[in-house]
Amino acid sequence: MVPNRCFSFEGNIKVNYLDYLRANRDESLAGLMEFLSIASVSADPSLKSEIDAAANFVLFHLACMGMDNAKLIESEGQHPIVYADWRKAPGKPTIIIYGHYDVQPPDPLELWETPPFSPSIRNGNVYARGAVDDKGQVYLVLKALESWFATTRKLPVNVIVLIEGEEETGGEHIESWLHANGAALGGDAVLICDTAMFAPGLPTLTTGLRGIIYAEIECLGAAQDLHSGLFGGVAPNPLKALSRIIAGLEDEAGVIQIPGIYDSIVPPSPKELKAWAKLSFSEVDLLKDSVGAKALVGESSFTVLERLWARPSFEVHGMPGGFTGEGPKTVIPAKATAKVSIRLVPGMDPQATLAGLTAQVAKLTPPGIASKVVSLHGVPAMVVDPDNAFMDAAATAMQESFARETTYVRSGGSIPVSGSLSEICKVPVIMAGFGLPDDRIHSPNEKFNIGNFHLGAEAIARFFELVSKIAVK
Amino acid sequence: MVPNRCFSFEGNIKVNYLDYLRANRDESLAGLMEFLSIASVSADPSLKSEIDAAANFVLFHLACMGMDNAKLIESEGQHPIVYADWRKAPGKPTIIIYGHYDVQPPDPLELWETPPFSPSIRNGNVYARGAVDDKGQVYLVLKALESWFATTRKLPVNVIVLIEGEEETGGEHIESWLHANGAALGGDAVLICDTAMFAPGLPTLTTGLRGIIYAEIECLGAAQDLHSGLFGGVAPNPLKALSRIIAGLEDEAGVIQIPGIYDSIVPPSPKELKAWAKLSFSEVDLLKDSVGAKALVGESSFTVLERLWARPSFEVHGMPGGFTGEGPKTVIPAKATAKVSIRLVPGMDPQATLAGLTAQVAKLTPPGIASKVVSLHGVPAMVVDPDNAFMDAAATAMQESFARETTYVRSGGSIPVSGSLSEICKVPVIMAGFGLPDDRIHSPNEKFNIGNFHLGAEAIARFFELVSKIAVK
Repeated sequence: MVPNRCFSFEGNIKVNYLDYLRANRDESLAGLMEFLSIASVSADPSLKSEIDAAANFVLFHLACMGMDNAKLIESEGQHPIVYADWRKAPGKPTIIIYGHYDVQPPDPLELWETPPFSPSIRNGNVYARGAVDDKGQVYLVLKALESWFATTRKLPVNVIVLIEGEEETGGEHIESWLHANGAALGGDAVLICDTAMFAPGLPTLTTGLRGIIYAEIECLGAAQDLHSGLFGGVAPNPLKALSRIIAGLEDEAGVIQIPGIYDSIVPPSPKELKAWAKLSFSEVDLLKDSVGAKALVGESSFTVLERLWARPSFEVHGMPGGFTGEGPKTVIPAKATAKVSIRLVPGMDPQATLAGLTAQVAKLTPPGIASKVVSLHGVPAMVVDPDNAFMDAAATAMQESFARETTYVRSGGSIPVSGSLSEICKVPVIMAGFGLPDDRIHSPNEKFNIGNFHLGAEAIARFFELVSKIAVK
Repeated sequence: MVPNRCFSFEGNIKVNYLDYLRANRDESLAGLMEFLSIASVSADPSLKSEIDAAANFVLFHLACMGMDNAKLIESEGQHPIVYADWRKAPGKPTIIIYGHYDVQPPDPLELWETPPFSPSIRNGNVYARGAVDDKGQVYLVLKALESWFATTRKLPVNVIVLIEGEEETGGEHIESWLHANGAALGGDAVLICDTAMFAPGLPTLTTGLRGIIYAEIECLGAAQDLHSGLFGGVAPNPLKALSRIIAGLEDEAGVIQIPGIYDSIVPPSPKELKAWAKLSFSEVDLLKDSVGAKALVGESSFTVLERLWARPSFEVHGMPGGFTGEGPKTVIPAKATAKVSIRLVPGMDPQATLAGLTAQVAKLTPPGIASKVVSLHGVPAMVVDPDNAFMDAAATAMQESFARETTYVRSGGSIPVSGSLSEICKVPVIMAGFGLPDDRIHSPNEKFNIGNFHLGAEAIARFFELVSKIAVK
């Protein structure tokens, strides 16, 4: 296979990286749409070839622009990690760039205005699964790197690129690879573009992420599906059992009913709480802009931002079992499952939380039902200290691109490997994201603002320049 | 189209109906398997052509054997009723025969040992969706009628045949047709072969059926699916809401929590209760043979048979919404639905029960969620008085075929139109069924015992002969 979008070094180089990015906006967008047309759903084994296609797409771009050692790190039964580095800037800092080329499943398909893997441009946005999470943000980092190679034939800093394919399913491959190889990478900071801006036009650095445990609660009743007329009233019903279990795992005030789950939480610092209180954020705005529900829910003794960023949450994502087609079918299913997750905040241990969930499910399981909890993945929360030169460089670069002072927030979401990157590499993690709160990540009609895509590339390219001025070692 | 299985009248008629049935067992079974290979799932609009094929299959059999006025009763947007009659036995009783050619959806397909519409014979059973509910039992009645035409060129009684195609979805078409035409039919009794024997080898007449209301509880939260990281803890979750609603609709002792739902129930007579107590039935048998669960559930102050036959039951059949595929997906669904039903016993009004359910769902709906209850269908329970000559004729006919005294039971299932047949036609309803408790109706690997199929045809043919001796008008 031959890389399909190599820029040319012919002629004199007369432009700087910003000129290059601005002159090539159309081509950048076309390349992004090509990337987005690959259905790289990591959760779907039938789409393995699409996963490989997306990995190769990133690989060829890295190799083509001038990165060294571009390769796929393969492991049996896991999705490849795309690796490349460039270490020809002696005395300059080394940035580890992390991102992911895999995407969430696009279901429910019928709610997409245009197909999830046929990228479409409307109202200044590109619509596709993965548009902003995270292919669009990976691609803008590639363009930022390319802008330096294209205009100077080198980078101003040393760079190590790690783009994985399992972020949406727990990131096990990169997790184990990092444990074996992360400490030897020798980076000075990690850059992740996989978060959102707090509001349109407001450059935002994210200093904390919630962790997550994701599990399936399986309930078994009869040996086979039964007729609800002939057996209704005496046969145990796994869907009724699951409903009882789920209702029992949280009270009506939104307090999770797992003993001790809140005990080890490290609350946000007074300084953080004060900063959050200053953000122009109201429940009404969130309702109107992003949720669109009758009311917000959850622990009323905490602000909305605290609930999202500093408190655990329990959610049910789907309950397969029984008959879910059109019309009536009077079956008592033999088996039903609830896909659930608990978001974790600093201080909470994934294993201990899973154990607490498992014990509580056992306690809540009604007679006649056999239940078990199957863990799919778990990662702890992470918080980073914003007081370092790399964070400052990112804040300045973003402020220059967006012409507005950079703000610091947390996110309620999780990036599985972020904690390990921080702990193993022992360097600051810079989460500079260019999504918007209404980008509908993980939902139908996911989008990425095209202006943010281009400005994001400029900010990251500028970030490399500013980082090159930081003295290391 | 030409009927494909007409018997020949050539030669002298030397055999009686029993000889005919016994001599043609192989051909009867082959015909049944042809019928069972039609995927007449009434709930699935995409299978409308299969519904029509099954209706025509029955129609041609009726026309071919010698019934008069064979026709499809069509109605816009509804499945046809197959009608035929034969009224050339003056002074003899008129039997209205009811059955249905539609079947339940075959899901989950992966649990079938052989495909649901590729009938397969194993261990003396024929396996297929609809084998016993109700195509196999409709077909044995056709064979019983045919055995009289083939050997005497007439029937010993007058007969009206009504075979519908919406029994599994509420039977609206035949319901409205009966209200318009039922009183003028002029029948003396109704025969339904759509129930089961209480135990293998034990001929059984069913004197009561539970009714049903079937509804979908819809819960709406946010305006679109949301990411559980970014919104978990503040966005309402329709699946959590449904779990809370379902858990609230029944207490842990199996008592339905709808105010007044038990108030109007007419309990079984002391005579019936005494008869049920004599049946050789134990919880252990039911567990072992048919349910296979760790324990039976429900109201412990009632026996298992009372719970099944004389008490309402609340069941959940499926909860579509969110992500039900493989692996993790961290979505908070915008909408989720629970498919639920309540089985009704004598004295319970479907409309009043639905109103009670609707009010209770509203009361149980948590903040932030908009809920509604959509009714799919509802029919009341029915009980019949076993003390009449037609019931006696059926009991005798079955006793002769199975060489064992006929027993009387109720069933926990529902036949939507049975109540209307009884009320509008103002005649006894004879429910003579030849299924077995472990036939897995509505479940994967539904079967019909081939011996019961043949003996059932003989019993029904003999029933016509005995009925011809009953004096009417």
